[in-house]
Amino acid sequence: MNTHGTIFRISIFGESHGKWVGALIDGCPAGISITEGDFLPDLNRRKAGAAGTTPRQESDTPIFTSGVFNGKTTGAPLTIVFENNNTRPTDYDAIKDTPRPGHADFVLNKKFGGFNDYRGGGHSSGRLTVALVAAGVVAKKILKGIGITATLLEAGGNTDIEAAIKKAVEQQDSIGGVVGCKVNGLPVGLGEPFFNSVESCISHAVFAIPAIKGIEFGSGFAAAQMTGSTHNDAFIDAAGTTLTNHAGGINGGITNGNELTFRVAVKPTSSTPQPQQTWNNATQAVEGFTVKGRHDLCIALRVPVVVEAATAIALADLMLAAKTAL
Amino acid sequence: MNTHGTIFRISIFGESHGKWVGALIDGCPAGISITEGDFLPDLNRRKAGAAGTTPRQESDTPIFTSGVFNGKTTGAPLTIVFENNNTRPTDYDAIKDTPRPGHADFVLNKKFGGFNDYRGGGHSSGRLTVALVAAGVVAKKILKGIGITATLLEAGGNTDIEAAIKKAVEQQDSIGGVVGCKVNGLPVGLGEPFFNSVESCISHAVFAIPAIKGIEFGSGFAAAQMTGSTHNDAFIDAAGTTLTNHAGGINGGITNGNELTFRVAVKPTSSTPQPQQTWNNATQAVEGFTVKGRHDLCIALRVPVVVEAATAIALADLMLAAKTAL
Amino acid sequence: MNTHGTIFRISIFGESHGKWVGALIDGCPAGISITEGDFLPDLNRRKAGAAGTTPRQESDTPIFTSGVFNGKTTGAPLTIVFENNNTRPTDYDAIKDTPRPGHADFVLNKKFGGFNDYRGGGHSSGRLTVALVAAGVVAKKILKGIGITATLLEAGGNTDIEAAIKKAVEQQDSIGGVVGCKVNGLPVGLGEPFFNSVESCISHAVFAIPAIKGIEFGSGFAAAQMTGSTHNDAFIDAAGTTLTNHAGGINGGITNGNELTFRVAVKPTSSTPQPQQTWNNATQAVEGFTVKGRHDLCIALRVPVVVEAATAIALADLMLAAKTAL
Amino acid sequence: MNTHGTIFRISIFGESHGKWVGALIDGCPAGISITEGDFLPDLNRRKAGAAGTTPRQESDTPIFTSGVFNGKTTGAPLTIVFENNNTRPTDYDAIKDTPRPGHADFVLNKKFGGFNDYRGGGHSSGRLTVALVAAGVVAKKILKGIGITATLLEAGGNTDIEAAIKKAVEQQDSIGGVVGCKVNGLPVGLGEPFFNSVESCISHAVFAIPAIKGIEFGSGFAAAQMTGSTHNDAFIDAAGTTLTNHAGGINGGITNGNELTFRVAVKPTSSTPQPQQTWNNATQAVEGFTVKGRHDLCIALRVPVVVEAATAIALADLMLAAKTAL
Repeated sequence: MNTHGTIFRISIFGESHGKWVGALIDGCPAGISITEGDFLPDLNRRKAGAAGTTPRQESDTPIFTSGVFNGKTTGAPLTIVFENNNTRPTDYDAIKDTPRPGHADFVLNKKFGGFNDYRGGGHSSGRLTVALVAAGVVAKKILKGIGITATLLEAGGNTDIEAAIKKAVEQQDSIGGVVGCKVNGLPVGLGEPFFNSVESCISHAVFAIPAIKGIEFGSGFAAAQMTGSTHNDAFIDAAGTTLTNHAGGINGGITNGNELTFRVAVKPTSSTPQPQQTWNNATQAVEGFTVKGRHDLCIALRVPVVVEAATAIALADLMLAAKTAL
Repeated sequence: MNTHGTIFRISIFGESHGKWVGALIDGCPAGISITEGDFLPDLNRRKAGAAGTTPRQESDTPIFTSGVFNGKTTGAPLTIVFENNNTRPTDYDAIKDTPRPGHADFVLNKKFGGFNDYRGGGHSSGRLTVALVAAGVVAKKILKGIGITATLLEAGGNTDIEAAIKKAVEQQDSIGGVVGCKVNGLPVGLGEPFFNSVESCISHAVFAIPAIKGIEFGSGFAAAQMTGSTHNDAFIDAAGTTLTNHAGGINGGITNGNELTFRVAVKPTSSTPQPQQTWNNATQAVEGFTVKGRHDLCIALRVPVVVEAATAIALADLMLAAKTAL
Repeated sequence: MNTHGTIFRISIFGESHGKWVGALIDGCPAGISITEGDFLPDLNRRKAGAAGTTPRQESDTPIFTSGVFNGKTTGAPLTIVFENNNTRPTDYDAIKDTPRPGHADFVLNKKFGGFNDYRGGGHSSGRLTVALVAAGVVAKKILKGIGITATLLEAGGNTDIEAAIKKAVEQQDSIGGVVGCKVNGLPVGLGEPFFNSVESCISHAVFAIPAIKGIEFGSGFAAAQMTGSTHNDAFIDAAGTTLTNHAGGINGGITNGNELTFRVAVKPTSSTPQPQQTWNNATQAVEGFTVKGRHDLCIALRVPVVVEAATAIALADLMLAAKTAL
Repeated sequence: MNTHGTIFRISIFGESHGKWVGALIDGCPAGISITEGDFLPDLNRRKAGAAGTTPRQESDTPIFTSGVFNGKTTGAPLTIVFENNNTRPTDYDAIKDTPRPGHADFVLNKKFGGFNDYRGGGHSSGRLTVALVAAGVVAKKILKGIGITATLLEAGGNTDIEAAIKKAVEQQDSIGGVVGCKVNGLPVGLGEPFFNSVESCISHAVFAIPAIKGIEFGSGFAAAQMTGSTHNDAFIDAAGTTLTNHAGGINGGITNGNELTFRVAVKPTSSTPQPQQTWNNATQAVEGFTVKGRHDLCIALRVPVVVEAATAIALADLMLAAKTAL
């Protein structure tokens, strides 16, 4: 299932080389302003074009095909689609026999009995994140007064990101990175004890983003090396402000009103220009090969806005659910 | 909501100092053998008693109160409860005014308008993890032929864990740790593209465990510093065996049949014996205080079996759902 | 799965001749007063004892075993259990071989591979409706200012219900009935277009009640014989008051603020004292038999309060969900 | 929310006078053949054109825009859209002030704060049932070997339906009808005790169809007048065949392998050509008016295939879920 949320429910659909990709939002409140201009800033942040990103260029114009009337959401299911203009499906014929390392080719073929659309990763393509970003724009509108900011903290282990990209281009090998995310203005009380802790809900949504392999809240893995007396965040007023914020704004799985912070690990783009090896089902042997298609050397450059979107999607669902208290 | 799963649905209930805690499993297949003896090994692994763990001792005897007939699950909702014998609720009167740092006292009070049972953390107590472990035992039975093994890799930053505990006892300060988990025998194809990636589902369940603040799959945060040519795991046969396993057995959010690996960060126990400061609502000032009650110096010692349980719960739900393909 | 609701989630558990039956409510708002006295009126309405009802007497005392603190809901999962005191499981040994007509014995045996607890219907027993009624009491508390009233309109085709029961006792054959339900004080706007129409949601919950075989809203089946000019309810003020109420207070699947009305058909109790025939798996032949155990001649007498409970459960979930609009 | 199902999840979207309407199916198994020709028979059965149906003609050509590759489902979310070619939105300007009796105009305006697309009922239009029918075609493909047949049993209280339509045309007043549905080939065991009884699940889906106001399974309301000795269906073989079928193929909420039967009541089309009265918000008075737009005199003529679709949708979800037993 490719649906997220209990109250604010998002499904994404489409394939890399199909007619389009898009998002359906069921449970979107009525009266939210929806204009193309609202979506372009986040869509542009996700777009390719910089050094280290793919030469595949899509116009990424959102088309609102249901649930919008007179420029506002109607309360009916909202669909937003993006046409795929720049497809080159013939790039992918070889995938049928040689699953690309790091990609989902192999698992999709097995999972769906060979019926999956394998072209460019099909439905599992990073292209689908344009729909995530669009849904994130809607979610951010629901989170009035709440600021979500994700940035690339380091690439290829280097906090000088420009230098890291330059090196990757020179050595023609893909690199990963670390994205940090901060959320301000959250109320106290989002998240539920245990199964729907705010960490559970955010990580669930964030791991929907391809290439993300780790997440840590507050001090995260560093906390595992601290003592309780150092790690504990002392409350210093009735509003719950804490002196430090090792907990990343979360106690017992519930937001405490301080800044919510987390970091995510982005693996290197699987489609590196370097020669690789993989199993060839036609020849029944391991063979060398080089990835075809147009790809990002450092997908992490385009990830921050997608992390924001996933975070907004998770928080908007929690926020709307929290309204149900009597 | 404190419920997990689509097909194999688990709710946990109860309070630290109430009559009991327990789990309800709705959607449990019929015919699974359920005896007290099946549950004791995992329940004992979770139990206190070693150096660094709380002196609160509970018998932790599972009582099967519905859904079991003649020693087997019936297909009806299965409830398992654990009586709370060893409660000392008067330990917690002070919590009403002085929220303990690192604990959920503050957020629960705000979230539930002061109606929460604050004694020993109430419903948010780590005591509830006994119900998680019991549900995990049932989940493991569903995952026939699949082995889940979690171990404590380091405590307080030290891989010599005995030494770490000794030091913590000496300095009377709580410590955290890192738990590693490996899953063998998984089929190819668990997990869904995007919103229900296997990372999404496992992290959702694992972050239900109190004190966990980070999770990384395969190489995790280390992957962010690698190049694609190093990180990619080459397929070497038709079954999908890979030469390396930086991906932790997951491609595109879906299991690839190799060992699934992840690590989680456990923060230091919030209830450290060290003197702390917090806001006192009675005096309207920050004041020093010392935590009362009986607590673990290193809760991470008791976490591995709970990580196994959460992992089993997530995988059992995915496994049963995967059966729905035609 | 035996769980209902998206926001206000109810699971019921237990068996007719097990230790107890009960309800778990996950998503119950905090601060709702919960005393035994609040539950007794509805529990007593469901109880046996009148002519035409079973001689099995249970004390039906609700025990609040989690989620209640100082007499109020805490926001944590609420469990309410009822002990089974008056069990006589040996009455049911014959069921193993001879599935009772009208009962679930046959289908449960097939569905659960013979592992079901067959004693007295096990989990499928009408005994479980005590848990439904208890959950209904909580739901009614959430529906402040909304009145739900169900009454038995006719029994055995006779609106003189006392006479109908007398006749059933005389002829020693079970009878059915029709229950009418009216809901006043509903706001405009509960229910969703199409899949979660208020008729969809109420009928889903009401058909959870054993023995119910039909439901009609407003004029129902009579509407099928009317013309549009007669059936349409003219709006006569800005609040949406209608001159007539053939629609039963629902337009397009959404409450219109007028009285919501529906009727349900209750089949005759399957356990009639009359001699019957059924297949005997031991002898591999159709044989005569007489139902054992203690049963109601007219279960419809006890159904109205259960219909109220199911209606309240469905409406409480819709009501809480409706709060999520921005 | 306008989504149905746990495993086989269907959302419908679009508006009567928007760009299109459609269905998204998430959780559709891979490998199902999908051709335009597969859909046309059911789509044509739903289409207008006969006496008593609307003159609005749509081509109703299904366009498969995701989830299909080489003529088969891929396992990724399947979207099917239908373009709206024949829209005349100016017909509906008056609705803003004068809510049409029997329609959702009034409730939608209140529910969505005036932001709803009111043209032709917007998202609540019967036009959306084309998406239901399309989803039903897919569901029927999942239900291999199971036959679902719905027919119009009577219109305007007359079993001579041609005569009934003729009379309605003559008197220029809309009429309702009764649709019967039979399902053959079902396995024993679909449906769950209580909350997800097969009656609960079918009625939930069927009441998603506009204009349906009642449903009865087996003998339904007639059962309320029968005695137990007459109503009970005696089992006559080990396969569960029953001598009679008053239960409509369902015991205890679970299919028993006999023919599943139910009947639904369809109210008269709200848009009758007869003069009506309604509240006028502009003049603040009750005023006479005549419905504009193009409408069906007897919508019941077009309902049977939609009932089949809703039934198939409910059963496909239950069928796929039933596969999860170990």
